[in-house]
Amino acid sequence: MEIKVVRQILEWNEDCHKELQQLFNEKKILVLNVMGSPGGGKTTFITRVIEALRSDYNIGVIEADIAGQIDAEKMQEMGIPVVQLNTDGACHTEAMSIKNMLPYFDLDKLDLLIIENIGNLVCPAEFDIGEDLKISLLSVPEGDDKVEKYPLMFTRSNALIISKYDMKEYFNFDENRVIENAKKLNDSINIFKVNSAKGQGLDGVIDYIKAYIKK
Amino acid sequence: MEIKVVRQILEWNEDCHKELQQLFNEKKILVLNVMGSPGGGKTTFITRVIEALRSDYNIGVIEADIAGQIDAEKMQEMGIPVVQLNTDGACHTEAMSIKNMLPYFDLDKLDLLIIENIGNLVCPAEFDIGEDLKISLLSVPEGDDKVEKYPLMFTRSNALIISKYDMKEYFNFDENRVIENAKKLNDSINIFKVNSAKGQGLDGVIDYIKAYIKK
Ligand SMILES: Nc1nc2c(ncn2[C@@H]2O[C@H](COP(=O)(O)OP(=O)(O)O)[C@@H](O)[C@H]2O)c(=O)[nH]1
Ligand SMILES: Nc1nc2c(ncn2[C@@H]2O[C@H](COP(=O)(O)OP(=O)(O)O)[C@@H](O)[C@H]2O)c(=O)[nH]1
Ligand SMILES: [Mg+2]
Ligand SMILES: [Mg+2]
Ligand SMILES: [Zn+2]
Ligand SMILES: [Zn+2]
Repeated sequence: MEIKVVRQILEWNEDCHKELQQLFNEKKILVLNVMGSPGGGKTTFITRVIEALRSDYNIGVIEADIAGQIDAEKMQEMGIPVVQLNTDGACHTEAMSIKNMLPYFDLDKLDLLIIENIGNLVCPAEFDIGEDLKISLLSVPEGDDKVEKYPLMFTRSNALIISKYDMKEYFNFDENRVIENAKKLNDSINIFKVNSAKGQGLDGVIDYIKAYIKK
Repeated sequence: MEIKVVRQILEWNEDCHKELQQLFNEKKILVLNVMGSPGGGKTTFITRVIEALRSDYNIGVIEADIAGQIDAEKMQEMGIPVVQLNTDGACHTEAMSIKNMLPYFDLDKLDLLIIENIGNLVCPAEFDIGEDLKISLLSVPEGDDKVEKYPLMFTRSNALIISKYDMKEYFNFDENRVIENAKKLNDSINIFKVNSAKGQGLDGVIDYIKAYIKK
């Protein structure tokens, strides 16, 4: 019984995802679904992407959180159009919620819409939300076993960002274990290593994102 | 519709939770529900608790993970009775799953049962699983805003462990922000700071746990 309900939600979600993808293609908006653990470095990474691309492209952000608007305020301080989506307890974002946020943006002007998903390595991986690319972060302090423990996230991601790479010297983090396991799950995954705190090592992933901007 | 289903699951869960609590009281087993983000330091912390208490008490562990048995193997290497519970995608543990694991333990012998929940700051907070104490970890690299962003976890926890406290010098982590916000949500929460990697600062939380052992 429970499973049927969940399946149905996933089907409705997939229909709405496809509708959104079509809209974003018509409007030529590249959409990123940024996922990872709480504190994995999503917001800091997004601010670096914005800094690198804002002079050439119009960027908007949707911040999803259980509660509060801490990250949305950071985007607002940067002068970026942002909407806060509060899931009020839910552990993931659904396509319908993203659709409901769109009236707050001028879609004819946007080139890039970045969605920061709920900090969670589990359920966000199941729900497509109209994105072109799923980008998941794994931070060095989380440990090198997380790809094996949360396989769906890395199976479904287009890119894996190893964040807080500057912390490598303080943790027993076998980067090859992470890379090998991610490639075993998903041999087309693109892997990058960044220090978003200091803004180092981001060129590769910025170029990767730029290549998907819709013309 | 969706909400009704979820509510019903929570009610069934609560009945099973109470049944388990009664059983664990009869058998004089202290049960800890250890929660936190992926990589927050749950397993490392649990090994330190075991090291400190294993000469005086019989300890068992249930390891909950989406997939795999990485942490269960660590417990087995320590010679501790352990069962791996794989949720096969679910983002939290329920009381019924814990009940199903009990035949694997000799309940007449156990003094302490430690349950490592799924790495997730959201849904595990909603489900009581027969525990006496909910212990949640927040690691310094995750950032000082996580209590505000995941309020239910810290509202419902008996203890908050600030883990990877040795990493404080590398992160802009305002510990007072964490403590104040946790106490605002839950003024009876017990807060400890630990470095489980090096086994430092654990005496306070070990004494705290010991005080709950059932006689
Ligand atoms: N050293 C270091 N710290 C980082 C990096 N990225 C993020 N952080 C820090 O990690 C904490 C959580 O970052 P945040 O971007 O809020 O993570 P989010 O919860 O995933 O959005 C903050 O203290 C950040 O300053 C990084 O690449 N290196
Ligand atoms: N520096 C430091 N590292 C820690 C501490 N606790 C855990 N770690 C490291 O953090 C990573 C994740 O720890 P783990 O216990 O597996 O986290 P879990 O996923 O919550 O069970 C591993 O690399 C651990 O060695 C700590 O207190 N200090
Ligand atoms: Mg964030
Ligand atoms: Mg663990
Ligand atoms: Zn979930
Ligand atoms: Zn959940």
